[in-house]
Amino acid sequence: MKKFMDANFLLSTDMAKRLYHEAAARQPIFDYHCHLNPREIAENRRFDNLADIWLGGDHYKWRQMRANGISEELVTRAAEPFDKFMAWAHTVPRLIGNPLYHWTHLELRRYFDINETLNPKSAPAIWKAANEKLASDPELSVFGIFEKMNVSAVGTTDDPADSLEWHGKLKTLGVEGTATQTLPSFRPDRIINITKPDFAEYVAKLGESAGTRIGSLEDLLTALRSRIDFFDRMGCVTSDHGLDFAPFATASSDPVLARPNEINFSKWESETAGIFALALEGKQPNARESESWKTFIMNFLGGEYADKGWAMQLHVSALRNNNSAAFDSLGADTGFDAAGDGPVAEKLSHFMDLLYFRGKLPKIILYSINIKDFYPMATLAGCFQGACPGEKAIPGKIQLGSSWWFLDHIDGMEAQIRVLANTGLLSRFVGMLTDSRSFLSYPRHEYFRRILCNILGAWAENGEAPDDFELLAGMARDISFENAQRYFARRN
Amino acid sequence: MKKFMDANFLLSTDMAKRLYHEAAARQPIFDYHCHLNPREIAENRRFDNLADIWLGGDHYKWRQMRANGISEELVTRAAEPFDKFMAWAHTVPRLIGNPLYHWTHLELRRYFDINETLNPKSAPAIWKAANEKLASDPELSVFGIFEKMNVSAVGTTDDPADSLEWHGKLKTLGVEGTATQTLPSFRPDRIINITKPDFAEYVAKLGESAGTRIGSLEDLLTALRSRIDFFDRMGCVTSDHGLDFAPFATASSDPVLARPNEINFSKWESETAGIFALALEGKQPNARESESWKTFIMNFLGGEYADKGWAMQLHVSALRNNNSAAFDSLGADTGFDAAGDGPVAEKLSHFMDLLYFRGKLPKIILYSINIKDFYPMATLAGCFQGACPGEKAIPGKIQLGSSWWFLDHIDGMEAQIRVLANTGLLSRFVGMLTDSRSFLSYPRHEYFRRILCNILGAWAENGEAPDDFELLAGMARDISFENAQRYFARRN
Amino acid sequence: MKKFMDANFLLSTDMAKRLYHEAAARQPIFDYHCHLNPREIAENRRFDNLADIWLGGDHYKWRQMRANGISEELVTRAAEPFDKFMAWAHTVPRLIGNPLYHWTHLELRRYFDINETLNPKSAPAIWKAANEKLASDPELSVFGIFEKMNVSAVGTTDDPADSLEWHGKLKTLGVEGTATQTLPSFRPDRIINITKPDFAEYVAKLGESAGTRIGSLEDLLTALRSRIDFFDRMGCVTSDHGLDFAPFATASSDPVLARPNEINFSKWESETAGIFALALEGKQPNARESESWKTFIMNFLGGEYADKGWAMQLHVSALRNNNSAAFDSLGADTGFDAAGDGPVAEKLSHFMDLLYFRGKLPKIILYSINIKDFYPMATLAGCFQGACPGEKAIPGKIQLGSSWWFLDHIDGMEAQIRVLANTGLLSRFVGMLTDSRSFLSYPRHEYFRRILCNILGAWAENGEAPDDFELLAGMARDISFENAQRYFARRN
Repeated sequence: MKKFMDANFLLSTDMAKRLYHEAAARQPIFDYHCHLNPREIAENRRFDNLADIWLGGDHYKWRQMRANGISEELVTRAAEPFDKFMAWAHTVPRLIGNPLYHWTHLELRRYFDINETLNPKSAPAIWKAANEKLASDPELSVFGIFEKMNVSAVGTTDDPADSLEWHGKLKTLGVEGTATQTLPSFRPDRIINITKPDFAEYVAKLGESAGTRIGSLEDLLTALRSRIDFFDRMGCVTSDHGLDFAPFATASSDPVLARPNEINFSKWESETAGIFALALEGKQPNARESESWKTFIMNFLGGEYADKGWAMQLHVSALRNNNSAAFDSLGADTGFDAAGDGPVAEKLSHFMDLLYFRGKLPKIILYSINIKDFYPMATLAGCFQGACPGEKAIPGKIQLGSSWWFLDHIDGMEAQIRVLANTGLLSRFVGMLTDSRSFLSYPRHEYFRRILCNILGAWAENGEAPDDFELLAGMARDISFENAQRYFARRN
Repeated sequence: MKKFMDANFLLSTDMAKRLYHEAAARQPIFDYHCHLNPREIAENRRFDNLADIWLGGDHYKWRQMRANGISEELVTRAAEPFDKFMAWAHTVPRLIGNPLYHWTHLELRRYFDINETLNPKSAPAIWKAANEKLASDPELSVFGIFEKMNVSAVGTTDDPADSLEWHGKLKTLGVEGTATQTLPSFRPDRIINITKPDFAEYVAKLGESAGTRIGSLEDLLTALRSRIDFFDRMGCVTSDHGLDFAPFATASSDPVLARPNEINFSKWESETAGIFALALEGKQPNARESESWKTFIMNFLGGEYADKGWAMQLHVSALRNNNSAAFDSLGADTGFDAAGDGPVAEKLSHFMDLLYFRGKLPKIILYSINIKDFYPMATLAGCFQGACPGEKAIPGKIQLGSSWWFLDHIDGMEAQIRVLANTGLLSRFVGMLTDSRSFLSYPRHEYFRRILCNILGAWAENGEAPDDFELLAGMARDISFENAQRYFARRN
Repeated sequence: MKKFMDANFLLSTDMAKRLYHEAAARQPIFDYHCHLNPREIAENRRFDNLADIWLGGDHYKWRQMRANGISEELVTRAAEPFDKFMAWAHTVPRLIGNPLYHWTHLELRRYFDINETLNPKSAPAIWKAANEKLASDPELSVFGIFEKMNVSAVGTTDDPADSLEWHGKLKTLGVEGTATQTLPSFRPDRIINITKPDFAEYVAKLGESAGTRIGSLEDLLTALRSRIDFFDRMGCVTSDHGLDFAPFATASSDPVLARPNEINFSKWESETAGIFALALEGKQPNARESESWKTFIMNFLGGEYADKGWAMQLHVSALRNNNSAAFDSLGADTGFDAAGDGPVAEKLSHFMDLLYFRGKLPKIILYSINIKDFYPMATLAGCFQGACPGEKAIPGKIQLGSSWWFLDHIDGMEAQIRVLANTGLLSRFVGMLTDSRSFLSYPRHEYFRRILCNILGAWAENGEAPDDFELLAGMARDISFENAQRYFARRN
């Protein structure tokens, strides 16, 4: 019987233990996709209490509290922080088998040196001890956390219209602030989502940020280019797209799922300009027009990213805001999303095909929260590797992204790692990201690295890989950090 | 080498063994969904021979006999019982790896104390020994089986027009009959399936059972309410719906996949009334009308169930009657169904959203026979947990149902348990059901409990859960019995 | 720690080791589906060098080289063989976790007695040693390979218009050539794919091969029958169909997804004749017409196969030629295909239903490269087992085919074996095929047999199957060879 979450947690062979402790664990963290608030970084924020940092914005936890029958009062509403914390403490022992059970205890151990399990009995003392540390321990300011967790870089998620003021402040501070690089990431969802009621308003705001008035499609593309230039100067190395499904539609006269040589580009552009003009007048495009718009803009942006050497992150198969009543009272991102289950392969194929055909395919990372998408996405990735003619090849150019959100657990991560290994080059994988709003989430990298090393170790143990520590340790180091570092380098 | 199916069958760690033998195995069985014949219960039936009880109605076995090249004569037709039994005995050694191999031998052991494996050589002696026990052993009457297997309650599957005569008889008998509760379950498939040729005839029958003539939609809803009241008085705690796919469509003028606030309810009701009127005249609604009908009635019923505190069981992704020639000669439920593979998430989402929005979402259990549905369904469940505003919260209100039918084997059960654990609260799971027509199926609960305890035990053994027997034993007891007992209590 | 790929590679229990070494490994190979060139067989070809035999046509390897950033020059273009080999040697150490890592080293060991791992350092010596063997070792001619690998039969893949000249030569040679039977397989994709630009040209060629001019549908069916007769005389026992999706559509006046009794056959035939007439004039049918054509022809062919006792192999869920630019420069089958993810169950169901209803359902093997198709396909198979009325039953008549292409690895094979076992009769499985263009691929049978024996051994070890070596060894022998031998026998 292994002790609960001991030093060799998730490591079941000697090779796995060595790989983790001697290679993976020593690597810095390149957290290329998160939702940290750059202002909180720049201000080196401290946190009031464990409820604040754990329950203030974490819809993963909210969902489990609701499933445990906790009233919404104690989940997202005005209850006292201690009462919310106790409600969470009542839920934790119910979470055995869920990754939150591991994350909660990893965070207590790694940040607070608390080795007990959290439950209603242990909760009051944990509350007290953790809050004292939060109040005074220099390791628990943002900069302290970055240093303690060996965070080399974080990629925040930023709207194209954002001034990146806090990224600028951090640049000015330099290493006087923190050695951790805070890189902006370009997330243009609001310009993609043309059917949202505030679209026209957003376009105006985007124009302002670019110092122009956007009255036409041409203006818009110019403004986007200008913002991409600005983000690039500010250190951006990647974009990020949150998509419900993989869009692909071109001009209405083209065949459905047109091949590049069937597309009438000038027709498509003029149709798109018309859709945009109507949307600026507040008119709602229909489903076909909306999909054509998304495809046009994403195709444009993909080309721009390719020119900058940025990676394009595509997140698919989310089914959002399923509970209308909850959305009306709590808004988006409050724990009412799910995994979608529609087909994704054909449209993703056409999307990448068009960019490749134009010689403008950027590095792409394909993520899904539905395991069924892993095989189609991993095998599609294999169709667009290497280089567009004339380009320098980038090893692992098209990536099957790390297990994410509802798949961010042992089974999900193992599935992603194994599908990637089975169909491609696991050794070129850029690895884990937190995708988190919380500064306490870095143990997710530890979690991932243990799972990875356990798989590599089992292969060696079973004679499926050579008993060659250096070979496997190189792989573990690459996937833990080096590959991401190289992949997101300013120019590959 | 473990002995075949010994006391520690499927239990691979010490913790798993303790959890099973000291906790799970001692719990009663709450078999909340089965297809037992209530008359056979009330009459405390005995069985003629092993062919009768094993092969009389079990299309699981029929399919495997056909796959083994056994002629239909020996499968469903007039061959002698002994010859059918021998045909089965020839098939069993071919079934290694299939759950029927385990179930067959568990049933021989638990009911008949026969520890040999079944094969053509051992078959004649097994036939003789088992039939003798069936003829005379008091443990092999229905009441004897219930007592021996520690069955606390069974939920039968009953048509809304059913008189529940035998449930009534059993109530009158009380514990003079059996201590096991026989609860009716409301299965209104025939009123949902408006395109079936005998629909109008069925409506008349339903009217009779409610003591009324159904001439309009309003009449129908009144009659259904009256039958729900009657079932409720007779002890019903759950409904059951067999759906090929997840229907969702509202009035023809609403958007496809309308959100609650986009639905024109009075328009929808009047359209539905029109569809019903035509169906009563024997006219076939089209696909859109049929789906709108199903959605309307299921939305109505869901609200009624919520008022009664009943659970609503939804079984999706069956593709039925695939072999037309076999259907013509043998009818439905004879072994010609398969797992469907269409998307289910969006429509299920809209279905639950509408009920929640109305403040009338009942407890729901979502089942599928396609593993690919587990992630979408489990994550959707998480969007509707807790309580509608004003209600008392029910822990684990929306359930990912146990692996069922084609998934009722080790891999399927492990998948369901792990997906639930990964995305929600396994500890709140209501656990296993037999879904069986046979009184010999209770070892499926044993099978499930062993698989469950093996997972919990492995977590402790590997340091993924605390080495805390009481904590894990509580979980095992809850999932084996207590959660179902609480979940299906008359009012939560 | 097991040594890398030692004698007990992939075998983790004593029973698994015994089953493999004493039963499975001793069986001959019946490789019923491959893409070997019959001329190379008949001419008993030898190979120039390791680049030629490994990299000349293997798009599996090409994909991984591209993913590793190797330039196309070194992948498919005019670079020197040694340079290509070195590019591959640079990629191999990056492939840990991928089946190509195992296959590469199995091939070095089994054909060349080279036990080192391939990497840039070991590559030059391996190049030299392997090429010397290729040049002179009698075991490395085609006939030598067949004998060494104990290949009982190979099923090539042949166009209906093919003269089968080389199959004829091999027949004439008899055992003076090789004891291995080279059986043609009927692959009529070009007559199915009516939308291809060279369709009319192909019809003319097919007519020539049948000694007739094809001017009408009737002519075509007559010609196909004649070619089937010819293939049958030449020893053909199976057909093979490469399908992007499972087609099903009948006459335009029939319901979508019509049941057999809803089909207007004469209408369908006359519509099909019209579609064919237009296609011969070079007119492109629309999507509905094309699907109806495919369904009509496949339904016709299925019936003919049933009459001959041939098996019908259906490969679904491939998404082909995803990269248009690569297709334009390199053509098809060069490494730009992926797994599709659309639903397949309903149409496959209707396709088999119609053949069964007509009493003309042949043996069918259902393959997919998307794991999500395994449950629907395996459960559908169970709906059409046994025999059409009046026929002799064939055990395991409808098969879930072996994991293939992107699923041809440990996880994919285990998934296929387990889904089949969970839902049907694993013991009746016809087992592995190479699907390969290379004479070095026979270790894939070894790979499969090890995986199979490991599963069977684990069942015995864990008490899930009886500790009965003979029972399990029989199963291993059947699945390794005997079942295929029986299934593909000239008449069952």
